[in-house]
Amino acid sequence: MKPPYYAVIFTSFLSENTKGYNEMAIKMEAFAKQQPGFLGIESAREEVGITVSYWKTLDAIKIWKANVDHQGAQKLGKEKWYQSYKVRICKVEREYEYKN
Amino acid sequence: MKPPYYAVIFTSFLSENTKGYNEMAIKMEAFAKQQPGFLGIESAREEVGITVSYWKTLDAIKIWKANVDHQGAQKLGKEKWYQSYKVRICKVEREYEYKN
Repeated sequence: MKPPYYAVIFTSFLSENTKGYNEMAIKMEAFAKQQPGFLGIESAREEVGITVSYWKTLDAIKIWKANVDHQGAQKLGKEKWYQSYKVRICKVEREYEYKN
Repeated sequence: MKPPYYAVIFTSFLSENTKGYNEMAIKMEAFAKQQPGFLGIESAREEVGITVSYWKTLDAIKIWKANVDHQGAQKLGKEKWYQSYKVRICKVEREYEYKN
């Protein structure tokens, strides 16, 4: 992937009820990877959970957001798992990397 | 902060030599918070480390990258602590959030 492309920064805090959360997160990541325009995904959680997914276009992001299975997961997320979350839709303008 | 603003997505994998890394990370986060144009920072590490910092302008990001103390930390990071890292400079175009 070469800029410009898009990133969705999803940051979240979990509630106390996380039953079923990990299974759903794994399932949704596997689904996301099958979507048209998907470029990559990275996740880590300590206090805050950060998941960044990368996409070719804004349309690819919209289509994934509206995906029926993903909508179901979003609903459960709000009802059960998340204390709060924030979604930022970003255009990746420039990038560089270092490898040892 | 209200879009548009900027995000720097810094993803990294550590080497086996992490002596001094945590202290430096804490110090650099404290310094970043004092920079003009700084809006916020979020970090989590599991396999991959993800740090996202938020900035008012691209210039604020450039000035922080060129900061002498930060340059010193970047040098040590390459020499010692990081196996690899990637930096993505992004424009946050849209955001929404949920609070339970």
